[in-house]
This record gives sequence, C-alpha cells and structure tokens, in this order.
Amino acid sequence: MRSLLTTALVAFAASAALAQTKEPIALRDMGSFHIGGRVVEITGQPVKEVVFTPGGVPARVDPNGAYQVEQMYVQYFLPQNRKGKLPLLMWHGGGLTGVTYETKPDGGEGWLTMFIRKGWDVYISDAVERGRSGWTNTFKGEPVFLPQGDPWERFRIGPPGSWNADKAKRTTYPGAQFPVEAYEQFMKQGVPRWTTTDDAIVAAYIALVDKICPCVVMVHSQSGAFGFKVAEARPDKVKALVAVEPTLGGDASKVALLKNTPIFMMFGDNAKDHPRWSKIRQADLDYVGVLRAAGGNVDVVDLPDIGIKGNSHMLMMDKNNAETAELIQKWLAGKGLVE
Amino acid sequence: MRSLLTTALVAFAASAALAQTKEPIALRDMGSFHIGGRVVEITGQPVKEVVFTPGGVPARVDPNGAYQVEQMYVQYFLPQNRKGKLPLLMWHGGGLTGVTYETKPDGGEGWLTMFIRKGWDVYISDAVERGRSGWTNTFKGEPVFLPQGDPWERFRIGPPGSWNADKAKRTTYPGAQFPVEAYEQFMKQGVPRWTTTDDAIVAAYIALVDKICPCVVMVHSQSGAFGFKVAEARPDKVKALVAVEPTLGGDASKVALLKNTPIFMMFGDNAKDHPRWSKIRQADLDYVGVLRAAGGNVDVVDLPDIGIKGNSHMLMMDKNNAETAELIQKWLAGKGLVE
Repeated sequence: MRSLLTTALVAFAASAALAQTKEPIALRDMGSFHIGGRVVEITGQPVKEVVFTPGGVPARVDPNGAYQVEQMYVQYFLPQNRKGKLPLLMWHGGGLTGVTYETKPDGGEGWLTMFIRKGWDVYISDAVERGRSGWTNTFKGEPVFLPQGDPWERFRIGPPGSWNADKAKRTTYPGAQFPVEAYEQFMKQGVPRWTTTDDAIVAAYIALVDKICPCVVMVHSQSGAFGFKVAEARPDKVKALVAVEPTLGGDASKVALLKNTPIFMMFGDNAKDHPRWSKIRQADLDYVGVLRAAGGNVDVVDLPDIGIKGNSHMLMMDKNNAETAELIQKWLAGKGLVE
Repeated sequence: MRSLLTTALVAFAASAALAQTKEPIALRDMGSFHIGGRVVEITGQPVKEVVFTPGGVPARVDPNGAYQVEQMYVQYFLPQNRKGKLPLLMWHGGGLTGVTYETKPDGGEGWLTMFIRKGWDVYISDAVERGRSGWTNTFKGEPVFLPQGDPWERFRIGPPGSWNADKAKRTTYPGAQFPVEAYEQFMKQGVPRWTTTDDAIVAAYIALVDKICPCVVMVHSQSGAFGFKVAEARPDKVKALVAVEPTLGGDASKVALLKNTPIFMMFGDNAKDHPRWSKIRQADLDYVGVLRAAGGNVDVVDLPDIGIKGNSHMLMMDKNNAETAELIQKWLAGKGLVE
C-alpha cells in the first residue's frame, strides 16, 4: 500500500509545480460566521467611564454582565465549479490563524486559493482565542508570545543554532524551501496563544463539524491533536483527515473509532533528525502503528523519501507549495473524494 | 447642494433593496497580507519550557529577543468585472474587526460582497491589535471587553434602558432595522480593544494607503477618526472618504488639506436625540462646518431625513443594508468614481 502510493506520488510530483495558474476564481458564494462558544457571567466589577477615542465623547461601561467567550471565526469560499465531493475544512497551527493558508509571506499563492481553484468548498477558521475569533480575559494562565528567532529553528527553516538576528548571518538547512527573504513578513502573521484552551478549541471545532460536515479536515501542527480529537468525537462526519506535520496524533485507546477514516500524514524534510521533531514524528508514527493494527487506513509520507526535499514545518508557505498541494489533492482523489 | 443630493437619494432608495442578487462572484484575484508595524527588543526575561500541546513534546522558549508588533492584516478581493475606478478600503469600528463588513450576524449578505459585486477592488483590514492583526503585551494599559448588553443601547438598537438579559424583555427603537434575533451572534464578532493604540493604528493605515492608493476609504465609528487622520496625512492618496457614523471627524486646524477630498457622512436613525450620539453627531457637524467654510466638499445625510428609518449604528448589518450600500454607491458614482 505504502510503496504503491509512493510510486504514484513520485510520478506526478515533477510536473505538479507547473499546475498553478492565475485563472479567475468564480465563487457561487463566499462569507463568514462565528460558531460555538458560551456565555459567562461577571459580577462585582466597578462601572467605568471610557474615552474610546482620544478627544471623543466618554462612554459609561458597566463591565458586569454576560460575556460571550470561546466562539470561533470561520470564512468560506464556495467555487462555482465544485469538484471536491465534501467541504474541506482548513485548521491552522499554534500561534497562528487561518492566514496560514492564505497568500504566502512572500506574496505567492497559498493553499487556500489553490484548493478553491481545485474545486473544493473551503471553510477556513481561526481557532478559539486566535485572530478574528476574539479572546477574553477569562482564559487561565498567560498567553505565549514568540520572539522573531523562535520559529526559525522550531519550524525547521534552519537547524538548531542557525538563527541570527542579522539576516546575513542566518543559515538554513540545505535547499530550504521556506521563502527566507519573507521570514520577517511571516512573523507578522503570529498571534498570542494560551496553553489552557484546548478543550474550548475542540468544542468549537466540533460545533463547526456538526454544522458543515460530512467533510474532509486538514490540520497542521497544533491542530493535529484537535483534528484527531474531533474525528474521534464525530467519526461519522470527518470522512478524511489530512494531517500536515501534526504535533500530536489521536488517542491510542480510541483507534477503533477511526478505522474507517482515511488519514494522510505528511512530514517535511529534516523531521527525522531534528532534536524535537524526531520525537514528535516518532510519537505520531507510534500512534499510526496502533491505528493500523486496529484496521486503520493511514498513509504516511516523509517528503524527502519521495524526492521532495527542503520542506520546513510550514509546508503551505514553502516555495514548492503547489507540488505539496497537488500531492494532497492526488491522495484525496485516490480516496474517491474528487468528482 | 445638500437638497439636490437628498432628492436624488430619495428617488432611488425605494428600489435599492431589490438590487441584491446572488449571482456568482468572479474574482481576478484574492489574497491577504500584513503591513506596517515595527520590531521591539525585549531583554532580561527567563527562558521557559512550554508544553504547547498537552501530552506533547516540551519546547524551549527564550522570550528575549526581537518582537514584531503593531502590524495590520489586510484581505483583498479583486472582481473580474471591475467598475470602481479606485480600490475601496473598508475600515471597521472599535471592538470589532473587518468581519463587520462580511456576512451579517443574521446570515444575510454584508457590504463586503455587495461592493465586490458592484465591481470594487475591496481591501478589508483588521485594525492593529484586533483580529488577524495579532496583539502583543507591549501595549499600554488594559484592553476593554464589552458585556453583551453594552452595544444594544450604545449602538442604538434600543433606546437607553431598553436592554434586558432576557430576550423577551428587550425593546428596540420603533421600526429598528438591526436584526435583533441575531444580536447574540453579533456579539460573537467582538474583540478586545485598547484605548492607547491610536497612533499605531493610524501608522499601519498610512502604510496601507501608501501601498494601495489612490483609493476610496470607507470608515465606520471609531475608524472615522483614523480615516480623517490618514486623509490629512495623505490628501493626495485618499480620493474620497465615506464616513459611516464616525465617532470623531478630522482636525479643524487641518481642514485646508481636505478641501479637495469629497466626503460622504451618514448617520442612522435616532442619532439626533440619543444622549451620547447627539453629542458625537454635533461634534462631527461642527467639524464639517469648519471644513465647508474652507471650501470642503462634504455631503451629510441623516437617513431618516430621506425616508430611511430605523437604522442602528451598525448600518452595514441592518436589514436594509442593500439600500444603504446603494446610497453610498450612488454617491461614489456622482463623484465620478464608477466606470
């Protein structure tokens, strides 16, 4: 199974980069909504006068009352020439938002419009407490902010020790696909993240799945754990899972729930050797092993093994993102999910 | 001038609501980018081990270093059949994001797609520190969070004293156009706001104008002040300003800069009598008086005066938003900005 898939992937990979076009995008509809969340009551706080606009008219703000918390923002684009048989939900990784899949930091086309052009109804969301989902001071603990150097090594653009605040002194892995000239631009996409909000994030994703699915869910990095949890909670609705460098797989005690859910797991280059990613990847593979033993249908691809080299953790932003998008498309087609 | 405009507006207003269609949207391109901001240095903080995903592999995070702050997120949609002669920039109000202009809380079509359908290249942004622009702990002061009842009265859905946590006990102004059944859904669009970030917000808007304009800028509520400030800073680039219920006008000492910038200022219903809005509106009108005396070209419309009644502060979400969008379109056409 694995070797057949690998052969097929290599066969079309060479020409995939040519497939990107700038044809007009025809949408039968586009829009957005917020979903999920809950209302909490705050009491005993003093009333404030707030001057929202310097020089403006003060407003009386009574902070006591009910607050909306933990909702999630979703934007959708529905192509006129639909070819994906199910909606495709795109879930981003930690410290980021749905912008992950939009235009790349270097201005090149991202996976969002690539998959719209391929004919998928795409629903792209910002996880609870990130981006347009909003946030509140009801979350436990402190949010994490990342300094500019942190993702350079943690996202495997360069090896440990390769970051330097001086652009001229930074180094990358050989043949790195990340558009390093746009690294600072990439850092503008970052948002704070809490480490205590997973349950709220999963609850909102489940609400989304209940509204939109059956569907295909694409996850990346942190949202790997969310994708597996949601698929375990709604095995009848998540019809396929595309897990791009998930930082965590599913629950080994619940693999029976996912035995009918085809899963495609992708890793970029240098994941096998990187001190942190080697552990993450191995934990993913250990989980896959348990899932396969229970009859699960999982394809794992390490991109360098099929000749696609130099990919960072941010595959969808790498220079060869049209090639990796086509790899996913081919897998989805192989599962009968493309008209 | 004012009475001629008013007559023209009344003439087409009756049929405007019929103009909304659900034809496919053809885009020659769509995408997003972040713009502006700056880098600040943080030093002397302890290194942390952070478990980003419960059960996952810990990561070492050194919080010292350079941080990207105060950038702004912009999403753009460029219709294939372009009719607007210039790009249209949509800037939202306080405590909200660009979602303001997207699908309405009741699921109806918003101004974003209405203006795309009218043929405008639309650039819709989240102000600095809101939504997909991200935020950092470098801002001064505390962010403001709004309880559910606050906008009901402050945005003139109902008069002072009309809010009640019990839906059945809430009242509205007579003939209110806001889709009150979706009020809780509207509250899901809210994000925290600081009151100390105006300069950073304006700086990012200026960076956007320098990149995209000459253009038309549409502002709402809090962004009224930003729109006037940016137009004063770039009078050659902001070719028209549509100010929807601005909470503050421009600088009376700088009106000479704006005498060649046509301005359309709109107010919904009950603004003249509301205890807070009457002051805001009067301050706007006082500014307009100074601008007109300096040769400025300003049209002010109180919607109820031209027979459009019941509008809240959130005009773009009100039931008659197709009618008010068409009012703006007609004004823009009258200024020669439509092919």
